[in-house]
Order: sequence, then C-alpha cells, then structure tokens
Amino acid sequence: MKKSMKKILPLAVVSSLALGSVIGMNQDNTEAKAKESKNGKAKNVIFMIGDGMGVPYTTALRYMNDNPDTMEMEKTAFDPYLVGLQTTYPEDEKENVTDSAAAATAMSGGVKTYNNAIAVDNDKSDVKTVLEQAKENNMSTGIVSTSEITHATPASYGAHEESRKSEDAIANDYYDEMINGKHKIDVMLGGGTDFFERDDRNIAEQFKKDGYSYVKSADELKKDKNDQILGLFAESGMDKMIDRDEKQPSLADMTTAALDRLKGDKDGFFLMVEGSQIDWAGHDNDVVGAMSEMRDFEQAFEKVRDFAKENGETLVIVTADHSTGGISIGSDGEYNWDPAPIQAAKHTPDYMAEQIVNGASVEETLADNIDLELTEEEIDSVKTAAEKGDQTEIDNAIEKIFDKRSGTGWTTDGHTGDDVPVYAYGPQKEKFAGLIDNTDQANMIFELLKNKGKIKDKK
Amino acid sequence: MKKSMKKILPLAVVSSLALGSVIGMNQDNTEAKAKESKNGKAKNVIFMIGDGMGVPYTTALRYMNDNPDTMEMEKTAFDPYLVGLQTTYPEDEKENVTDSAAAATAMSGGVKTYNNAIAVDNDKSDVKTVLEQAKENNMSTGIVSTSEITHATPASYGAHEESRKSEDAIANDYYDEMINGKHKIDVMLGGGTDFFERDDRNIAEQFKKDGYSYVKSADELKKDKNDQILGLFAESGMDKMIDRDEKQPSLADMTTAALDRLKGDKDGFFLMVEGSQIDWAGHDNDVVGAMSEMRDFEQAFEKVRDFAKENGETLVIVTADHSTGGISIGSDGEYNWDPAPIQAAKHTPDYMAEQIVNGASVEETLADNIDLELTEEEIDSVKTAAEKGDQTEIDNAIEKIFDKRSGTGWTTDGHTGDDVPVYAYGPQKEKFAGLIDNTDQANMIFELLKNKGKIKDKK
Repeated sequence: MKKSMKKILPLAVVSSLALGSVIGMNQDNTEAKAKESKNGKAKNVIFMIGDGMGVPYTTALRYMNDNPDTMEMEKTAFDPYLVGLQTTYPEDEKENVTDSAAAATAMSGGVKTYNNAIAVDNDKSDVKTVLEQAKENNMSTGIVSTSEITHATPASYGAHEESRKSEDAIANDYYDEMINGKHKIDVMLGGGTDFFERDDRNIAEQFKKDGYSYVKSADELKKDKNDQILGLFAESGMDKMIDRDEKQPSLADMTTAALDRLKGDKDGFFLMVEGSQIDWAGHDNDVVGAMSEMRDFEQAFEKVRDFAKENGETLVIVTADHSTGGISIGSDGEYNWDPAPIQAAKHTPDYMAEQIVNGASVEETLADNIDLELTEEEIDSVKTAAEKGDQTEIDNAIEKIFDKRSGTGWTTDGHTGDDVPVYAYGPQKEKFAGLIDNTDQANMIFELLKNKGKIKDKK
Repeated sequence: MKKSMKKILPLAVVSSLALGSVIGMNQDNTEAKAKESKNGKAKNVIFMIGDGMGVPYTTALRYMNDNPDTMEMEKTAFDPYLVGLQTTYPEDEKENVTDSAAAATAMSGGVKTYNNAIAVDNDKSDVKTVLEQAKENNMSTGIVSTSEITHATPASYGAHEESRKSEDAIANDYYDEMINGKHKIDVMLGGGTDFFERDDRNIAEQFKKDGYSYVKSADELKKDKNDQILGLFAESGMDKMIDRDEKQPSLADMTTAALDRLKGDKDGFFLMVEGSQIDWAGHDNDVVGAMSEMRDFEQAFEKVRDFAKENGETLVIVTADHSTGGISIGSDGEYNWDPAPIQAAKHTPDYMAEQIVNGASVEETLADNIDLELTEEEIDSVKTAAEKGDQTEIDNAIEKIFDKRSGTGWTTDGHTGDDVPVYAYGPQKEKFAGLIDNTDQANMIFELLKNKGKIKDKK
C-alpha cells in the first residue's frame, strides 16, 4: 500500500489488476493443485502453531511486509493459504477463554478440556495425541518450539500431565512414555536445558545413551547428522528472534533441521512447529517482540511450504491456539498503523530494559537500539521509569513509545477468545476449510493417520 | 459450551461427536450443494455488510448464542458459511486504516480510494458500482440499512460524492442519477427523513410523483404492495434494535420487504443490506448496543439465507467493511467473557443515559433497564457521572459496568485494520473463498453480472 498519493490507473486497468490478484490469492489453478498433491494422499503432516497469533497479528505482519513504493499491500507468506477460522474455547469450569494447554490438547488430542491440562481430559485421563498415533503408525515425529520444549503447546503433543506447570514431569514423559518400545519423539528442538539437565535426573544424558544426539548451539545443530536429536538452545525459552545471538538457531533453522531428519521415513512423519513467543510478546504488550516472532514464524513457514511443494505428499496446517493481548491495529481514535517505528527497533524493549536496569545509560541504550529520533518527552518517560530501578516499568515505558508511534492498542495481559485463522496447504487441505473447531484439527488428522493419508468424504 | 463441569463421555464417543460437528460445519455434502444452486448460475446477488463486524464481533455473537446447558458452543447463523477473510486497507494519503466510505467504495466499485470517498476514486472521478451495473442489466435493485440510507455504506452503492458528509447531495444522487432513464434504486429502506424531506428540496415527494411508495412506519411498510418504495423510519439513524419501538421495523423486516419486491424480476436483482450500527456501538465502546446490532444483522441474514435456499439462484455474501473499537473477548487479564450481563440489558446505555440526563432517577433507571443486582459501587459510579449532568459521562459509566462484568476490552473509538470475515452461500460462492481484498468483492460481482451469473474459471 502506498504512503503517498499516486496517479490512479484507468478503471479498466485497475480492474484487471485486481482480478489478477484474485487469481494469485485463490490458488485455484490446476498446475498448483497438481504440485500440491501427487496422489491426493497426505503421507506427512506438519502442524504449525503460532501461539497467540490471532487475526490482528497476521494482519499486522502484512502491514510490516508492505513495500510503501508499490500500490498493493504485499502479502504475507501465509496469505495465499488461508482456508478459514477456528474456534478456541476450552471446557473449563470457570473460564471460557482458553489457555495454551487446553487449546493444544484440543488440537493434539481432539478433546475439549480445562485450562492447564496437558493432553488429559476433564477427568484427568490421558488422551492419545496425533503425534502418538503417528508413532504407533511407525512414522517419525518431531516437535520444534522457541519456548522450552516442555512448555504447554509442545508438551500437549508429547506428554500427559494434570498441570502445565509440571515441566520436569513433562520432560520425563518425553523419555519415559515409550510407544511400541520406542521413544515417541525423534526430534526435539527448542529451549529448556533447565528441565532436562536436572540435579534429580539428567534426561539429556538418558537420551544420549539411547542414541540421540544432544546439541546446544546453532553450530552443533548444523554439524549433527543423527536422525534422532535433542537440541536445547536456552535454559528455558529462547531469546526472541530480534534479540538472538548466533548461538541460537532461528525457528526456520530448527524447522529445516527437523525436516532433514524426518523426511527420509518411508512411513511418513508428523512434525509440530510452534512460534511460541508471539504469545509471550502479546502477554507483555510488546509489539516489537510480537512482530519479531511473527517474522520468525513466517520464515519457518516458508521452509515448510517449500518442502511441501517439493514433496507433494505433505499436508501443512498453520493456525493459532488463541489470540493474546487484545492487540489492535489502530488505537486511541487514530486511523493509521505505522510499521516504521517497529522496523526501527534493533532489540525488544525487554532487552533494552535489562541493559538499563543493569546500569547502562537510558539515552545511549535507546539511541543504540532504536533507529529513530526520539523526543525529549519519550526519553524522559524511560528515565523516570529507570530512576525507580524497576525493569518492568522501564520495559513498559519503552513499549509505550512503540505503541504510541505505531498506533498499537492492547486490552489485556492475557488471552482473548476471538476465532483464529487457519491456513492449509497440500493434499486433504480442503477438509480444513470454513469454520472449524480446534478439536476438529486433531480429529481430522487422526482420521487421516488411520486411513492411509486420506480423510473420508463426508456424506 | 457448558459452564459447569459435566461427566465426560468416553473418548471414542467424543471423537465421533466431534467428527459429526465437522460434517455439519464444512457444508460439504452433495444434497446441500444441489439445493444451493439449480444450475450454478447466480441470477441474484445479495451483499450484506456488517459495518464494523470484525472477527471479535462474530465470535462474541457465538458466545451470546451459547446455551450453557449444552456441551458444545452453539453456532451463529453465519458460522456454517464462513469462506475466508478480506483485507480492508484504503488508498489514503494519510491513513492506512479504512473508513466506511473507502471500504464500501472498494466493495461496490472495485477501487481503492481515500477515506471519505463515496464511489469516487483518488482522482475524484465517479466509479461505476455493482448496483449501477445491475440496473444497466435491467435488474431490480435495493439498499437497506439501519443508519440513514444516505450514510457512507449504502451511499457508496447508489451515489457519487467527494465527501460522505454531503448527505443531502447523496439523497439527490439517488433521485437524479438515472440509468437508461430509470431511477437506479428500486427499494430504499432505512433511516433519514432529514435528508429527503428538506426545505430546499423534497426528494421523498419527488420519488412519490415518480410512482414510488413512501412509508414511514413498520405498519405502513407491511401494508404497502408497491414494487418501488422509499421507506424512512427515523430522522437520521434508526434506533438500535434493543431500543426500537414497534413503529420502526427490524433489519429482518426491511430485508424481507425488499426481497418481496425484488424477487419477481425475471432479470434478477442486486440487494445491499447493511447492519449499520454494529459500528456505531463499536465507536461508542458499547458492548450492549454492539450485540443488539449483531443480533439484528443475524436475523436479517436468516431471512436472506432462507430465501436463497428456496430460490437456488441467489449468491449471498456477508462481510464487514472493517472492525471497530478494538473490542476484545476478555480483558484486564481475565480469561472469561460472560454474555449474561449483556443479556440482562433491556436497553442500551445510551438510552438509559438519556433518561437520566432528562431527570430520571439513576437507581430506578438502572433497575428498570438492567436485570441484574448492581453493586453500590456500580450505582455510585453512574450517580457521580449524573451529578455532572453530562450524558456522555453517564453513558460511559453505564458502559463500564457492562465491560467489567462481561470482560470486554476496547482500544479506540475509531476503526481497526484487522482482516474481517467473509461468508458466502449459493452459486459461485467458492470464488470468494480464501483471503480476498475488499476490491475483489466488486470485481467478482461485476464479472458475474457481465457473464450471465457466472465467474469465469481462473487459469
């Protein structure tokens, strides 16, 4: 979308351009369909979850991707594959807005449950997950996240616990819960050494003894050639993309590493990839962090999309578990959302606040990390917060600068209940179209896994 | 969705129930398809716009419709027909979040334009609208809204003005801009006597002289049998459904009246129906008013859906122009959105504030209009506002009670840029699936009107 008024093309030309874009967006052409599916069979399933990625986040990413020099607004990598929305409500006694555990359990196990539940139902009984079904089918399996891989979303694919807080127990489950005598997850990549290298038990060592590689840096990941791998690149959650050093791989790097290991299985594979910290940035009401994590997730999707296009037998679903923060594109009466100040950030407000609370100068930290001429008032607002010595207050003050300049609004530090987008690519994708429920995701993937890659036609 | 924990069914049963709901939601069965389209041709087009109806509004309506005694969350009337989302950004020099004029011009005329534009492009040249194309095709046409029918959205289908504020000129356009010697709109129903019965010119009289009926109450509308009609039921905008007396028809009543008049045309018809005041309630951050208008719009859609099912040659599109207010389902850290307090309202906060500012007792007004035991603190907050004698402050104080009790958040009294839902029913509906742009709506309808009811297959 252009910023400055341009000469308008004659109506007929505009119309045909617009129709051209329809053609591109609807993905309705025969050649593309042929590539997507060699035989209509989904041998592999890649399920991608943008944690907290409600509609305002995917729209904001499009505003971020826009080239102001062109007339159209540039698309996100996800856009061509939109097939609908999904409902996310949990089955909780007190809450009707979901947390990530109940939502992931719905998507992994096909049941509504209470907030906090890791692949257990309302009776606290274990529910089988699609990852476990895949392993029963003798397929390869993987989970990739930028949170610790024992966090609620990945945990709901590979563990069973009454509470998401039991992250040690979740790590234990990954090792202990065998399927047909085998570990159920072949590839585990994300953060979380704290939960694997423990005083009471060293799960990482145990996996190593059983033939897994154990890597802890991007470089080690790159060099490793083993099909089974545990890769943990941070004590708990990884840094946000914009704050990451070269020791931590990107979500795209981890996803590629997972695909390289899984794709050789003649029985196919199931891979769950989570953009975990879109949600964390949302909780923090940090639009810089949120857009950093959206971009990380988008780049991982690009790898997945390219793989699936080449492979032809891979169903890819991209969705969210819920939206977070009540984020809005436009706030306080302004009819404008400006990505420029967000693009000017070199690190998250969290990162800057940490520097400042550890003694760095407010002015220098802001100047070093934000490629913008800040006003005296803006700098003073951070100085005032810094004088109190509270990192959260400094963080909030810096976030407010970005909110105000970009026109971003927030209503909560929690989740919201609005329906979230569903994207699909590959064989059987049409089954996921329209408005579906989060439990439908699992139930359709179960059906597909039980029926040789096809979901039966509805009567 | 249930409120209290219930006995959980065995997993196998739950799974098959869940799959049952998938079957229902995906609308993928042959019988339904046969009914939708006699011959794949869309003879008639009904385009419904929920003004301001972003995804949080359609989700909130589902929470409103939920029967707490059942396990599943009840669907809205729209839900089974979701086909995707649409982008809404304008082509404005200063703003990248759309207003209703630019958005409606995109949907009616297929061009991006500046905020404020009524069916003119960025060069201020008139752009032909789909309603005008329909009239050129000798089809019957209608516009129905709960705003004055000269307001931005309906205006962008039947008028051409540089500014949406020129509502007198818009009314003039409806009369003056003839197509093949005929008035372009056969049925006009909504509010707006102020713009038609003017000192300088009485457009209502002029339409009457040309054979139109002119009605001003629900009763007169019901009794009238003329195919061409102007019906104006308020000076400007009509009251919100929850505040309406029996003199004002519902949006469903007006829509039925329009269909009764248009359906006989052997050349087909184009009808635009707007749920205008979802947006107005959003601007006011009034969740009671917003849900009242969502229900009014849903009931109108039910009439349209039933007509289209019976008719078999009618394409129905339901969408929004943008979202409003940055509304969120859940706010301030709460993971719950409770429709009960909203359902307990008998009138909007606006209505109550007007009573109070005109001298009614705060306590009695609240007790008469809200079927809830309010706290002393809540009543006092309204009393404090009432003491200042300012209607807006009283309104805001009452709105806050509903926001707090329901868990509704807001970020702006303006619009937001997030993508909005698209629903479609009937022949050619699949062409509107996926992510489309608001200009695609018009361009596809133009193509359909020019190609005997069919949109050509994409290459």
